[in-house]
Amino acid sequence: MTKYPVLSPEDFVLRKFGLFASELAAFINFPSISAQPQHNNDVKNCALWLARQLSEIGMQNVNVIPTRKHPIVYADWQHARDRPTLLIYGHYDVQPVDPLNEWKFPPFKPVVDKGFIHGRGASDDKGQLFAHLKALEFYLSIYQRLPINIKCLFEGEEEIGSPGLEEWIAQNHAHLKADGAVVSDMRIPSTEQPAITYSLRGMLALEITVSGQKQDIHSGTFGGAIYNPIHALCEIITALHDDNGQILIPGFYDGVLERSVQERKYMKTVGQKDEAIVSDSGASRDWGEKGFSVYERTTIRPSLSVNGIKGGYQGEGPKAIIPSTASAKISFRLVPEQDPKTIEQLFRQYVSTIAPKEINFSIKNFAAAKPVVVSLENPFVQAAAYAYRQAFGQQPIFLASGGTIPIVNLIQEQFNIPVVLMGFALPTDNMHGPNERFSLANFYKGIVTSIYFMEEIANAGRVA
Amino acid sequence: MTKYPVLSPEDFVLRKFGLFASELAAFINFPSISAQPQHNNDVKNCALWLARQLSEIGMQNVNVIPTRKHPIVYADWQHARDRPTLLIYGHYDVQPVDPLNEWKFPPFKPVVDKGFIHGRGASDDKGQLFAHLKALEFYLSIYQRLPINIKCLFEGEEEIGSPGLEEWIAQNHAHLKADGAVVSDMRIPSTEQPAITYSLRGMLALEITVSGQKQDIHSGTFGGAIYNPIHALCEIITALHDDNGQILIPGFYDGVLERSVQERKYMKTVGQKDEAIVSDSGASRDWGEKGFSVYERTTIRPSLSVNGIKGGYQGEGPKAIIPSTASAKISFRLVPEQDPKTIEQLFRQYVSTIAPKEINFSIKNFAAAKPVVVSLENPFVQAAAYAYRQAFGQQPIFLASGGTIPIVNLIQEQFNIPVVLMGFALPTDNMHGPNERFSLANFYKGIVTSIYFMEEIANAGRVA
Repeated sequence: MTKYPVLSPEDFVLRKFGLFASELAAFINFPSISAQPQHNNDVKNCALWLARQLSEIGMQNVNVIPTRKHPIVYADWQHARDRPTLLIYGHYDVQPVDPLNEWKFPPFKPVVDKGFIHGRGASDDKGQLFAHLKALEFYLSIYQRLPINIKCLFEGEEEIGSPGLEEWIAQNHAHLKADGAVVSDMRIPSTEQPAITYSLRGMLALEITVSGQKQDIHSGTFGGAIYNPIHALCEIITALHDDNGQILIPGFYDGVLERSVQERKYMKTVGQKDEAIVSDSGASRDWGEKGFSVYERTTIRPSLSVNGIKGGYQGEGPKAIIPSTASAKISFRLVPEQDPKTIEQLFRQYVSTIAPKEINFSIKNFAAAKPVVVSLENPFVQAAAYAYRQAFGQQPIFLASGGTIPIVNLIQEQFNIPVVLMGFALPTDNMHGPNERFSLANFYKGIVTSIYFMEEIANAGRVA
Repeated sequence: MTKYPVLSPEDFVLRKFGLFASELAAFINFPSISAQPQHNNDVKNCALWLARQLSEIGMQNVNVIPTRKHPIVYADWQHARDRPTLLIYGHYDVQPVDPLNEWKFPPFKPVVDKGFIHGRGASDDKGQLFAHLKALEFYLSIYQRLPINIKCLFEGEEEIGSPGLEEWIAQNHAHLKADGAVVSDMRIPSTEQPAITYSLRGMLALEITVSGQKQDIHSGTFGGAIYNPIHALCEIITALHDDNGQILIPGFYDGVLERSVQERKYMKTVGQKDEAIVSDSGASRDWGEKGFSVYERTTIRPSLSVNGIKGGYQGEGPKAIIPSTASAKISFRLVPEQDPKTIEQLFRQYVSTIAPKEINFSIKNFAAAKPVVVSLENPFVQAAAYAYRQAFGQQPIFLASGGTIPIVNLIQEQFNIPVVLMGFALPTDNMHGPNERFSLANFYKGIVTSIYFMEEIANAGRVA
């Protein structure tokens, strides 16, 4: 502890914890739902609040940078001469909240209950992002300096697939240059067991709309005469999987490699058990591709989910119509050998072969992101493992994740630097669902981890 | 024309037509959507308005009778000694209006455009009901009497399957006794060609809800691990039809009789051509059961339509979830040999055999009505044919209809009297869809037809 003569990281966080939790509550309080235009102003106000936080703790060059949709919040501190530069990425936008009636507490009026702070974005990603911010505050408030150079990049479009981020990073390449990056937008097995994520699935989010006759018509008068767009859409969706849970799009699995026996064995050792994943999901039993464990199916195997479907009458009671259109939001999770552009092409081709000729269809691309595998052989990952050991008293395990974080691929492709995927959320945090929450114990340990992480990067290497 | 020494029916209607059209507009102005609880008061206010109209023209015993849901409007006039009693049935409730953005004019602010009055309920059934009311006004305003005894039964629950009507009619059997009934809630081929409908399909409206895990979950984290309720629902819907448009529920067609060669030949002669029905529907081509014309498929063959589907994220953009539930509103149109109760049972059995074991499902019954065939051998139908000839200058044809009017079966079963299905709506009136309308020429001819109809019933027979 001699590294920290004034106050240990643990003592600092404990003393300030009430304040930090209430600040996090204020952060969650913004309904910064990036997908819904009616919340554009809330997203913006959240960005301004975050910028002010960064400024108040002593970060420099704080900027709220407009993009075509939602602003990027940038800040840096670059006075640690000869020390590495760490890029901290996070996102302050959140998922939509429906179905609202399933929330125990209002999603944007955070409540602390049984050791968890409840609210949309609590764990994904406001709580995790905020842990790093409080680590910066530790150094800046006590020492008025940071042990390493820091660049913060907090975006407001992650939940809609970061549409403008690639272009913006390309344009600001020199400005964003760093030696390593940390992204905390993932889960660890428990409050006792930290984990570093080494692979992420890619993503492709589409919407298919089926159109039949030009308007809704009477199903008594016309029932039996024409193709119902809902029937056609259901048939298309049904034709996407076979009975064994495999995806039927021709070419979908082309090039998808079997993972090594060694990797699968390690995954089996450290990964969540099938029963635990099913239990976390709230389902009564598992389902999916034969020949793979549930953990494998959700991480190293691709998948396809219909995220929403609608068509025809949506109100109460019956309505005797054949609707004119029906649509479904469909998203893929992809593994490293799958390029989202190719998969979209294959999907379009397949739908055009199976769609009934009586209807028309159109497909819209919402978002896409390439899959990622992160190398574990670098000092940043080692520093993260050290920091986790300090804060959690436990060696981290290495996990594959089923999720997608577009920025990770972008950083790897554009800067060719190590990205540390350092998670603080729990499997039971209900990310994307109702009753999202974040463990206050993990918030505490997250801040402490980040403090040790920065110090250890400083120790690990001077840079030219 | 000596039957009407003061003023001919045609002259009466022409002189008053501007007023009648504006009264009809006031009637349409009520958003009396029976399916939507937020419109309960509108339904009630519409009933009160209609009762007042009946009272003002001189009908007696006007009553607005509460039921469990929406009131029945009753009125009578019973001073035509030794003359038959005619029961006039109509409904003042209307279908929901969504999708609202597809309406050219607001659905409840009626506009006259190109000879049509536009608005929800214009043809189904306010305009058709109102034609009879104006026919009553003709007699009562000029002669202070009616040529026959009349009982009006106007309900507010037709569009939700008349849930309380059977019980109420049974309880008021003696009170409602009549020698014949007329129901005007159907279509005729054109303004030049009247038609009497002789068969109606039955109906069964259900909702199936599929439930998976207990709440919406992250499709990155869990995609590939569990059964998605939307996928399951789509598979169930897909399994309802084969590629030839036949319904796959075992036992569904049991007992369904082939119609006679003679009937099918007559249908082919007088019925709408396939191309005309498809063109009315707004579809690019037909689809359905092989071996039957489109007219046959929509009238003498049963059908199944999904009227609405929903599940998961309904907002804009993408949302990475696997939803916890998905549901679909499914309705059948049934032919005489099919009992709705049996069909519901067969549907439940079939779904339980095809539903994936990973999910649960529940089925709710919204409404059911038995199919109807009306005998054409009676003086009421003959009077209707005469009246149509007078008003339209054209012999009516006899049509099978694909629609359902629960009251017709109830009247037949409970009173064993002839029911005349006398339509005034056109195939292009967009009943149940956006831009519903009613031809003012048909409104005019409808009033005139009803006037001649009543007179001819009086001529046809004295009763004991």
